[in-house]
Amino acid sequence: MSHLQTAARAGLRGKSLTMATLNPQVKAVEYAVRGPIVMKAGDLEREMQQGVKQPFAEVIRANIGDAHAMGQQPITFLRQVVALCCFPELMHSPAFPEDAKQRARRVLQDCGGHSVGSYSASQGVDCIRRDVADYITRRDRGVPSDWSDVYLTTGASDGIMSILKLLVSGQGPSRTGVMIPIPQYPLYSAAISELEAVQVNYYLDEANCWALDTEELQRAHRAAKQHCQPRVLCIINPGNPTGQVQSKKCIEEVLHFAHEENLFVMADEVYQDNVYSADCRFHSFKKVLFEMGPEYFNSVELVSFHSTSKGYTGECGFRGGYMEVLNMDPQVKAQLVKLLSVRLCPPVSGQAAMDVIVNPPREHEPSYAQFTKEKNTVLDSLAHKARLTEQILNSVPGIKCNPVQGAMYAFPQIYIPPAASLSLAPDMFYCLKLLEETGICVVPGSGFGQRQGTYHFRMTILPSPDKLQILLQKLKEFHLHFLEEYSQAEPQMSSSNPEQPSHASKQPD
Amino acid sequence: MSHLQTAARAGLRGKSLTMATLNPQVKAVEYAVRGPIVMKAGDLEREMQQGVKQPFAEVIRANIGDAHAMGQQPITFLRQVVALCCFPELMHSPAFPEDAKQRARRVLQDCGGHSVGSYSASQGVDCIRRDVADYITRRDRGVPSDWSDVYLTTGASDGIMSILKLLVSGQGPSRTGVMIPIPQYPLYSAAISELEAVQVNYYLDEANCWALDTEELQRAHRAAKQHCQPRVLCIINPGNPTGQVQSKKCIEEVLHFAHEENLFVMADEVYQDNVYSADCRFHSFKKVLFEMGPEYFNSVELVSFHSTSKGYTGECGFRGGYMEVLNMDPQVKAQLVKLLSVRLCPPVSGQAAMDVIVNPPREHEPSYAQFTKEKNTVLDSLAHKARLTEQILNSVPGIKCNPVQGAMYAFPQIYIPPAASLSLAPDMFYCLKLLEETGICVVPGSGFGQRQGTYHFRMTILPSPDKLQILLQKLKEFHLHFLEEYSQAEPQMSSSNPEQPSHASKQPD
Repeated sequence: MSHLQTAARAGLRGKSLTMATLNPQVKAVEYAVRGPIVMKAGDLEREMQQGVKQPFAEVIRANIGDAHAMGQQPITFLRQVVALCCFPELMHSPAFPEDAKQRARRVLQDCGGHSVGSYSASQGVDCIRRDVADYITRRDRGVPSDWSDVYLTTGASDGIMSILKLLVSGQGPSRTGVMIPIPQYPLYSAAISELEAVQVNYYLDEANCWALDTEELQRAHRAAKQHCQPRVLCIINPGNPTGQVQSKKCIEEVLHFAHEENLFVMADEVYQDNVYSADCRFHSFKKVLFEMGPEYFNSVELVSFHSTSKGYTGECGFRGGYMEVLNMDPQVKAQLVKLLSVRLCPPVSGQAAMDVIVNPPREHEPSYAQFTKEKNTVLDSLAHKARLTEQILNSVPGIKCNPVQGAMYAFPQIYIPPAASLSLAPDMFYCLKLLEETGICVVPGSGFGQRQGTYHFRMTILPSPDKLQILLQKLKEFHLHFLEEYSQAEPQMSSSNPEQPSHASKQPD
Repeated sequence: MSHLQTAARAGLRGKSLTMATLNPQVKAVEYAVRGPIVMKAGDLEREMQQGVKQPFAEVIRANIGDAHAMGQQPITFLRQVVALCCFPELMHSPAFPEDAKQRARRVLQDCGGHSVGSYSASQGVDCIRRDVADYITRRDRGVPSDWSDVYLTTGASDGIMSILKLLVSGQGPSRTGVMIPIPQYPLYSAAISELEAVQVNYYLDEANCWALDTEELQRAHRAAKQHCQPRVLCIINPGNPTGQVQSKKCIEEVLHFAHEENLFVMADEVYQDNVYSADCRFHSFKKVLFEMGPEYFNSVELVSFHSTSKGYTGECGFRGGYMEVLNMDPQVKAQLVKLLSVRLCPPVSGQAAMDVIVNPPREHEPSYAQFTKEKNTVLDSLAHKARLTEQILNSVPGIKCNPVQGAMYAFPQIYIPPAASLSLAPDMFYCLKLLEETGICVVPGSGFGQRQGTYHFRMTILPSPDKLQILLQKLKEFHLHFLEEYSQAEPQMSSSNPEQPSHASKQPD
């Protein structure tokens, strides 16, 4: 500040907006999923286009859950409905099935001027909100859902950011603490930085298939209370980047803990359709809360997030999503609507895409067979790739990968010999070398958080089976070569130490 | 805070998120365009649907620039391109013209996996950024535009919010001051509240057709320097809610002032295609800056915003937009990309819609004739309605309306007899009565800011000519009746007093 004032007084001219005057909360934000490794991948691609030779034929982007970019085909019915909404003249085309037309007509009926070019209400198009509520009720086997609790969003990220924005208040030891899993999806840490909340880390148990242990929640909460007011508990189930699917018992314990400690629960359930292990099932936090009885169901403040970007549709580009908000104070709900209204509304075509996911073709409808076939093809392929990834990774000395029970990622632990720890963080160094030598783009574990002394990376399971097989084979060779190059000693897993704070944790000053 | 702590210590259970614990920055946000009058309009509509009788047949929503909701038809070519992008099987359909297919193919070529379902780069799809840069160069008659300065956004609001987020820093007297016009579009005041920046008001000269006077800028800047660091100058041209179109000379003076005071300029130019007065032309801030010479063009930090929501397309629901960023510090640009990357990308269908606006059919292409006809129909109708609105409003005693030179709104000054100032703010009271008696929904001037003692409302010129005529006639009758009811004295305009601070101004404590 005084630097600025001095410069101003001296009449020096510079830019108004510099690194010195930039919002420090923006500076603090980190988002590894599109971080330095990914930028380097872009540079390599551009160089290759200009004829620069590399030791690989193409960059394989396994850094981001972007299914269509990796060749996954869109669900025909979804695209038909969106196209009909965008260009209603197609209603006259015999090439479009009647059930798609019916969906589109219904959405347009609830749009201003019957056009997706109108703003929707800030909360979203009425009939889509109703369809979401019906979907939730079906999914949760009869647990009631009120459509006035449903808000359409611009992808799940937007909803998560809006809810966190409501929750941050207080100064010093009263500042809102937000409990997040480590490893986490870095939207959470980025939002916490941007909002100047206090990040409170709880560690998932890698040795126990990334289970969420209530004792660890208690430890983190107790520790946090020393310097902030922990008020929010974020859960990602199925896990990103960790791929675990939480058991019903575990969810019950978490909700019991949240109830005890009066925590606002944010359940990131965007991978609810992505469960692969035969012995796992998706249990929504809401359904489990309902089954715990009215004392819980009528009191715990819970928001669940969903998205068009994942599941079997993988429609990231449409930026569709919803959140269901339970037990929120009605006055606060009005404030939420006000906050959303400043950005006017989520994209209506994304809302229409969301509608298809919650209101897919029924058994008697003309598109049912094709829709079901396409959906199963995607999900079966993902399940196959989840197993393939886990198997091949675990066949490599110095790599250990938990089962990919759900979601779209593997987050293996990798042994990095001490000699490889140069100026860069060891996992960053590893991922950079991997990219430069093989063209494989993955994200260092440090971008998600990991126990001190352990190293990981996140890779998606999205490449086509053939490409994934090649990727994993190249990764194996790279890893063995890397070990050989940097290690005299035998490769060994570094031990995780629950008592040590991780360098991923962010303590207040 | 102490209240909370006491409650916690006493073991009292309440909600975690209440009005007491809500983020105070959220609480401070106001957004009148979807505020209490508009909510009341929704209530009335719902009641009427349930059979409740009102003294009017329908609610006419003249509160928001939502063209399609008011019956404006979409531009066929735009919708064809978007539909083709969403459902590429339509490429085989002879019903779609070749130029629309060519546009869609080109966009898809640059999407990951050739699908709009992929995330784009955080800055947007490459070829669309290039098309935007080409458009700007054509619009500005050869002024160069570098596509790496172009960022696609989720509507203009999102871009404005992102840029403001970068700019806010410092505490106390070093806190960033953001200069905004009064009257303003309330996105600005809402964003300033949310970001805890300092709002610095400069007043447009109503007596002089809402002109922007540099002396007033200097006054506001001088006054603000006492309590904050004014670093940002926001301009809306053509004006919202005020409808004026700035002259080239005025823009030159503003840019000269910004250069002198080292202000970061945010030019909201979303109504650049909405100019109706024969003696007005849109001049982009960028072109004027270029013509001021390299000392200016190479130094003033300028961001210009555009949108799919306005112009002749009125595609609000797609949430498309772009911003062009000039002279931004390269390190800060990297920070901007990082910030944008947390929300992943703007909706790709909205980007495709933006592409059509910047890359419309050319003269030799098959869709040119229809496109041009549709475009002109919309713009001619808007110009007609702008004149109609101004004429009828000015025929009412106690209403005075500046020419609607551009944009989509009239912002007339209304005389409100002192007897009508009850518990509500007088303009709020007026708009509420207007709604309840006539079904016409407009927004009180206080939502945009106005000089103390003056009252206004904002109405859109978007209803169909027939409906607009009826609306204006009903408004006239309402106003005369209102005057009769609340006034003994003759109606008279309240005088504006430039020396008095307005109640719309927000001073630091």
